[in-house]
Amino acid sequence: MEEFKILEVKQSVFANNDKEAEALREELKEKGVFLLNLMSSPGAGKTTTLCQTISALKSELRIGIMEADIDSDVDAHKIRKEGVKVIQLHTGGMCHLDAEMTRQGLEGLGIENLDLAILENVGNLVCPAEFDTGALANVAILSVPEGDDKPLKYPLMFQVCDVVLINKIDTMPYFDFNLEVCKENIRKRNPKAHVIPISAKTGEGMKEWTDWLREACQKGKSTEEK
Amino acid sequence: MEEFKILEVKQSVFANNDKEAEALREELKEKGVFLLNLMSSPGAGKTTTLCQTISALKSELRIGIMEADIDSDVDAHKIRKEGVKVIQLHTGGMCHLDAEMTRQGLEGLGIENLDLAILENVGNLVCPAEFDTGALANVAILSVPEGDDKPLKYPLMFQVCDVVLINKIDTMPYFDFNLEVCKENIRKRNPKAHVIPISAKTGEGMKEWTDWLREACQKGKSTEEK
Repeated sequence: MEEFKILEVKQSVFANNDKEAEALREELKEKGVFLLNLMSSPGAGKTTTLCQTISALKSELRIGIMEADIDSDVDAHKIRKEGVKVIQLHTGGMCHLDAEMTRQGLEGLGIENLDLAILENVGNLVCPAEFDTGALANVAILSVPEGDDKPLKYPLMFQVCDVVLINKIDTMPYFDFNLEVCKENIRKRNPKAHVIPISAKTGEGMKEWTDWLREACQKGKSTEEK
Repeated sequence: MEEFKILEVKQSVFANNDKEAEALREELKEKGVFLLNLMSSPGAGKTTTLCQTISALKSELRIGIMEADIDSDVDAHKIRKEGVKVIQLHTGGMCHLDAEMTRQGLEGLGIENLDLAILENVGNLVCPAEFDTGALANVAILSVPEGDDKPLKYPLMFQVCDVVLINKIDTMPYFDFNLEVCKENIRKRNPKAHVIPISAKTGEGMKEWTDWLREACQKGKSTEEK
């Protein structure tokens, strides 16, 4: 099996990240690549969710994954086993990726012939929400063990998201977690967010999520091709 | 019951945080206040651990708590029920506290007649580790649902800690979490860190932790009083 690259992404020299992000988004639309930015706390299940998502969609879509971490390459190894293109990005201690760092990642990954590129952002519920990566959609994962009050405490993350996946719902019996309270807390921050309870471990809810993603990719394509 | 204050802490104007932190640490030593900086991912159990810690030590030590969050005051309400002094700090979107923000918090809290002040930092495994708050000890909580590989992916947090509490060990049967692997991963980052597995929910391990904290407070005092 081909090994993956490890790329040290450099801090951005651009003062205006929003402008860089908008330019990247336009380029990706032209090239027909749907870029998804996946964010969460450390350990909320981004990589497991990604593996299941790849498994469900890889026969229909050409997928490439960017694993961003401060250090280590454990996630890229896991993704590699799914048989899709993957690159490990090291952020040099940075707690988030901006549009220019994302661009470096996409160039390292190689996006020719891709339909869907997914950035697994650094595990952090604060800083990644502040930087537009140029993605066409932002998705946050909140896991049951973290608690149903997190949308109140980390407002921006939930405001910038198109989808919130509530993961590890198979562990609800073991935690004080109220799904309806959690949904209501998300709605307070972002009434438009699409909320999908899932268990990446048992597969529950994964069809609704992958259906959403497939459709979003198709819409992205039709926008760009019309 | 007396209500608690909510203080909007301002971003630091000081360029040299390390110097500010050192000055604050010296002041606190002179005043006989042991400042503990408690850090973790969102939802690792900082507040529950704090409540149990207060409950175990409040008859022996005069305790004050600073709850730092980007938004909300749910944690301060929980702490208030333990009957100790508490202040809610809002960071204005900031992902961490530096020494000057901590100083503002301590002034808002009021530390006259305190033995132990605890800062519950913003839930974030990245940025808080980069800023010395002036605390006499740094403690990180890593919870079982987050996974045993986190010390590999968030190295600095584990490097700067005196103690790592591995929380939610009552949920180990439901997660792929290897305690020995986790300890080994922590040791790779920081051979000196004192690692204590706990469950703030069931109370397991809490005696070892509160014994450590009691002794650290006493040592802090003896250093300053000698």
